[in-house]
Amino acid sequence: MNKSQLFEQIQKKQSFLCVGLDSDIKKIPSFLLDTSDPIFYFNQKIIDATAPYTVAYKPNLAFYESNGLEGWNSLGKTVHYIREKYPDIFLIADAKRGDIGNTSALYARTFFETYNFDAVTIAPYMGEDSVIPFLGYPDKWVVLLALTSNKGAFDFQFMEDPKGEKLFQKVLNISQQWAGAEKMMYVVGATKAEELKGIRQIVPDHFLLVPGVGAQGGSLSEVAEYGMNAQCGLLVNSSRAILYASTLENFAEKAGEAALEVQNEMKYLLKKKGLI
Amino acid sequence: MNKSQLFEQIQKKQSFLCVGLDSDIKKIPSFLLDTSDPIFYFNQKIIDATAPYTVAYKPNLAFYESNGLEGWNSLGKTVHYIREKYPDIFLIADAKRGDIGNTSALYARTFFETYNFDAVTIAPYMGEDSVIPFLGYPDKWVVLLALTSNKGAFDFQFMEDPKGEKLFQKVLNISQQWAGAEKMMYVVGATKAEELKGIRQIVPDHFLLVPGVGAQGGSLSEVAEYGMNAQCGLLVNSSRAILYASTLENFAEKAGEAALEVQNEMKYLLKKKGLI
Repeated sequence: MNKSQLFEQIQKKQSFLCVGLDSDIKKIPSFLLDTSDPIFYFNQKIIDATAPYTVAYKPNLAFYESNGLEGWNSLGKTVHYIREKYPDIFLIADAKRGDIGNTSALYARTFFETYNFDAVTIAPYMGEDSVIPFLGYPDKWVVLLALTSNKGAFDFQFMEDPKGEKLFQKVLNISQQWAGAEKMMYVVGATKAEELKGIRQIVPDHFLLVPGVGAQGGSLSEVAEYGMNAQCGLLVNSSRAILYASTLENFAEKAGEAALEVQNEMKYLLKKKGLI
Repeated sequence: MNKSQLFEQIQKKQSFLCVGLDSDIKKIPSFLLDTSDPIFYFNQKIIDATAPYTVAYKPNLAFYESNGLEGWNSLGKTVHYIREKYPDIFLIADAKRGDIGNTSALYARTFFETYNFDAVTIAPYMGEDSVIPFLGYPDKWVVLLALTSNKGAFDFQFMEDPKGEKLFQKVLNISQQWAGAEKMMYVVGATKAEELKGIRQIVPDHFLLVPGVGAQGGSLSEVAEYGMNAQCGLLVNSSRAILYASTLENFAEKAGEAALEVQNEMKYLLKKKGLI
């Protein structure tokens, strides 16, 4: 999916919601554990309930890997299910990979060929050759970590050079030599919404993938105020607040209601900006 | 395995060689492709041929993930094979993971519980809470990326703050607040051997995992000169130079010879330092 197609979906659905499929076998409703593939069953129900309000899904690989072969099987089935039933959904592998060039090429093969994702999250620490192999696929995307939503973000990402440029700013600046706004997005945590204004000066046209709204405490209206651009330029992720809205029989219905509530706020914010 | 047990193995085998099981379906001898699980078959033969000269194996996850379910199956069988037949070998998952705390906890579960690795490589970009969950397992290790062997290392890892502290030095300094030399190792590329002297001033007692000798051009004797400490403190990785020493029927024999050659040099270096 390319950038203008993604914006079309945002306009059509009046939403820039990404649902994080962080489906934890220890947190899903316990009555699902009797089914043959509880995670896949859970995902199907969540997807069907939230797809009308959602432009992207983002399974975090950790939740699948930790179940071993069975987990990878659930992931493959989930990707296939979305691709077949909701072909216009943008699919992000939240994998935070990154290795030397020949190895990153294999990760790219994994997520873009073995699994048919649109995008994969990448950690920038190892620099250019760890990112480049992901950029050779048409209409596929790199989502590079810039400023993350967690407490540990303060350990290194705010390190400053003598000119006052911070590490996350350097990541935004240098990585633009590798690819432009048609191939690269950036992770910017909602818990650092006040930084979005400055970030938009460095990357005015790029899409930003914004985690941290909801369970982690970020504010959607602040994110939109400082981060929205002329093509929206935002995918705001919500995981726990939607997935675990209820652990009763009505869990999917409640997830749908939680997604609808976010979508309603997003619709208001898109209208306010004149984008729909 | 704890630190003194690892040093015992190094003394016993007169080697600090780690063989990187970067087993690529596109590079292994083509006659193996007729077997039911070519990667596992290849690994078995390589392991049997190199185990006498090796203290650690390090499968890079990318090579397994890129084969989908089959790849994870090969990995599981490889880990099991090593654990059963060579219980004194140190096993590193070269995964370069790192995520927010609750997600890193799942990666820890994957590599330390679902698979029974001794250590996992972690990218430091997301800071403390992305590393901490891996540190709660007795006798299990974090191998944190500090200074990598690739060209892209120069993009961010050498960034300097106003006091002249570089990012990789900051990683070494700050991460020591999270765990000491009994739980944490660092990746330091052999292609940056001249940096090892300074690195040893920051982390005198830690083990360093050193990739980049061989195919990537690093020198073993320089690494030993600047990096070896009183408990050796080095695991030097070689992947391609050993795995693909030959692609003929005698591939395992040739891999064994290549490992023996490295082990001979290591024996000399350990003796020179008075450690055996």
